[in-house]
Amino acid sequence: MRKVAVVGVGETKFSGPQTKTGVELFAEAATDAMKDGNVKAKDVQALFVGNCLSDFAEGQGMVQAFAAENIGCFNVPANRYEGACASGSMAVRDAMMWVASGAYDIVLAGGVERAATLGTPLATRTFAMFSDARYEFPAGITFPGVFAMLAHLYAATYKIPIDKLREQMAAVSVQSCKYGAQNPKGQFFGKYGDLTVEKVLSSFMVASPLTLHDCCPFSDGAAAVVLASEDVAKKLTKKPVYILGAGQASSGPLISQYDHLPKIYARELASKQAYKQSGLSPKDINLVELHDCFSIASLIASESMGLFDYGKSGAAWQKGEAAIGGRVAINPSGGLKSKGHPIGATGAGQVYEVTKQLRGEAIPALQVPNAKTGMTDTLGGDGGTVVNMILQRGW
Amino acid sequence: MRKVAVVGVGETKFSGPQTKTGVELFAEAATDAMKDGNVKAKDVQALFVGNCLSDFAEGQGMVQAFAAENIGCFNVPANRYEGACASGSMAVRDAMMWVASGAYDIVLAGGVERAATLGTPLATRTFAMFSDARYEFPAGITFPGVFAMLAHLYAATYKIPIDKLREQMAAVSVQSCKYGAQNPKGQFFGKYGDLTVEKVLSSFMVASPLTLHDCCPFSDGAAAVVLASEDVAKKLTKKPVYILGAGQASSGPLISQYDHLPKIYARELASKQAYKQSGLSPKDINLVELHDCFSIASLIASESMGLFDYGKSGAAWQKGEAAIGGRVAINPSGGLKSKGHPIGATGAGQVYEVTKQLRGEAIPALQVPNAKTGMTDTLGGDGGTVVNMILQRGW
Repeated sequence: MRKVAVVGVGETKFSGPQTKTGVELFAEAATDAMKDGNVKAKDVQALFVGNCLSDFAEGQGMVQAFAAENIGCFNVPANRYEGACASGSMAVRDAMMWVASGAYDIVLAGGVERAATLGTPLATRTFAMFSDARYEFPAGITFPGVFAMLAHLYAATYKIPIDKLREQMAAVSVQSCKYGAQNPKGQFFGKYGDLTVEKVLSSFMVASPLTLHDCCPFSDGAAAVVLASEDVAKKLTKKPVYILGAGQASSGPLISQYDHLPKIYARELASKQAYKQSGLSPKDINLVELHDCFSIASLIASESMGLFDYGKSGAAWQKGEAAIGGRVAINPSGGLKSKGHPIGATGAGQVYEVTKQLRGEAIPALQVPNAKTGMTDTLGGDGGTVVNMILQRGW
Repeated sequence: MRKVAVVGVGETKFSGPQTKTGVELFAEAATDAMKDGNVKAKDVQALFVGNCLSDFAEGQGMVQAFAAENIGCFNVPANRYEGACASGSMAVRDAMMWVASGAYDIVLAGGVERAATLGTPLATRTFAMFSDARYEFPAGITFPGVFAMLAHLYAATYKIPIDKLREQMAAVSVQSCKYGAQNPKGQFFGKYGDLTVEKVLSSFMVASPLTLHDCCPFSDGAAAVVLASEDVAKKLTKKPVYILGAGQASSGPLISQYDHLPKIYARELASKQAYKQSGLSPKDINLVELHDCFSIASLIASESMGLFDYGKSGAAWQKGEAAIGGRVAINPSGGLKSKGHPIGATGAGQVYEVTKQLRGEAIPALQVPNAKTGMTDTLGGDGGTVVNMILQRGW
């Protein structure tokens, strides 16, 4: 199969509630991505959009078809993908296959969400539909509860006293907020840059042991990427970023993952697929955008991706090993915690960030030095979908 | 790219409201499809599911991941596709690409919906989200209204007096109900087999000129198909049915189709793609399962697919040219009108029916003689997604 490159990326600001429709938000990101990739709308052969809640948030299904028409990609095949928080990554991975196969040379993929528009109580409630609706949700387990339990299980499994784990998790949030406060695309741009471990620990308790600052916000936003075959990419840009590997796996209800928790088994599989496909290993990864919906999620994700030993990632964060300039820069964008989490857009937003970093086009204060290879990670539901992608600069 | 075969098909009975969850319904269809295809769950490499309304109907998103675990396809990549009524076809077309590309040898694809469970008023209202939610839906145009207007426009465009068109449309419904009453998988099995043109015309008016019997029901149900590469297919079955062509196109709001209506422009494009890819033409098609959500939709669809001249299909139905034994058998299953329309499952259900026909395994009374080549057609929204597929028996 053919090598596939990211040739253009675009993104709206991730934000709280705002008034643009999903189609309008996506159009903003998509037109930026096409401009960035030197691609005209008429050159796009298909449009793949990740989206979870547009029907709930604004009464609009099939947002991808209206988006295609809105941005001038008239009559192209247009698919909507739903894999909860991994919807955008699912769309990008599928677009990669359509290009790799030779069916299309240029595909636009991305995602959009208006989760903040729903308001936190309704967003929390509707979003719990993406856990198991028959046994988990009726038991009262919304996502903060799921991750709070995972934190306790993590502490017990790796014999870390819960107070020590809380400090480690707080270190994750402090780093994310420090970076995100400098990211003009981020929801918390200019905010919480001076967050401290003490402030995290003393912010109000959402689901013990997770406080407010262990949790990401709900967000509105969109992100889009233009993918092209290697030959076409070389004509469009001097800085093609190749997707060398893309893994995806699923799980059923939490109980089906019982033997593996607090590890998310789908991620163990998806990241291995991505490494195998790329021929690379964790030591080759210079930067990562991973799914830190809660601070504990960062620890779990980084370990499954092989970046740190199991039970050791919290200490690594505290030592600066996950910082820009550290062993591997994790979430230099601010991540879901500070940049924001517009559900269906999040995965495409990660590809945006990694591409910008590999091109050396990140905000100077957030640029990872000599970044050659990056990785993305998105988790949908409580393990129902995980997608990992490995990207490398091609020049 | 590799040739892709349908090696197994499965389907639940399409029905009114019932008590199984979407996962349970899909599992029933999927296990039948795997058994039919001599495939074990562990052989399935990915699962693609079309679904529109599971979050609304039962508070369950990401139904595909839970379905994968439920049927024993543990941890496979599992995607959900939404393209309104074309969701199931979208999933099958995407599965075809993953197999054609060489990435996977065996993929399970299909769809599921519990639309009847919502009840007709709520189903009508929620389903209108798949038309344009900013300008069309707020104007009060639900789908019966859209197709009623298309009927008037069709009558005006082709200079057919509306009473004559009503009789032509009634002939479509009479044929569909005659066949569907004999299809045990159908929602109206044993019902309306004695429908007459007079009964259609005198049933209550839903949206003039469409009466109740011009409209399909809302349905619960699921359908699934196992796709395999040519080499693998030959080991699994003596009767592989090849998907020789699959086209897909989109449109924006109705106003964007203004120059083409009552033709659905996305279908004009999608069917041409399918013919071109297959190297076949309309005269090669022996049977068709097309998207007759309303009787007028059958006339419009058959003409765009090149089966009858524009403005002439109604007369063709009246003359029996669309009947079993006629020029091309259209909807020998009973179609959406009588077999039923579980939105996300409908397209996969069409592939089920065409495959059964090409294998000579249809209900004897509904078997199309010497069926070698068949075609499917699904329409999502009011033109937002159209998928056409051409299948041929491979022995």
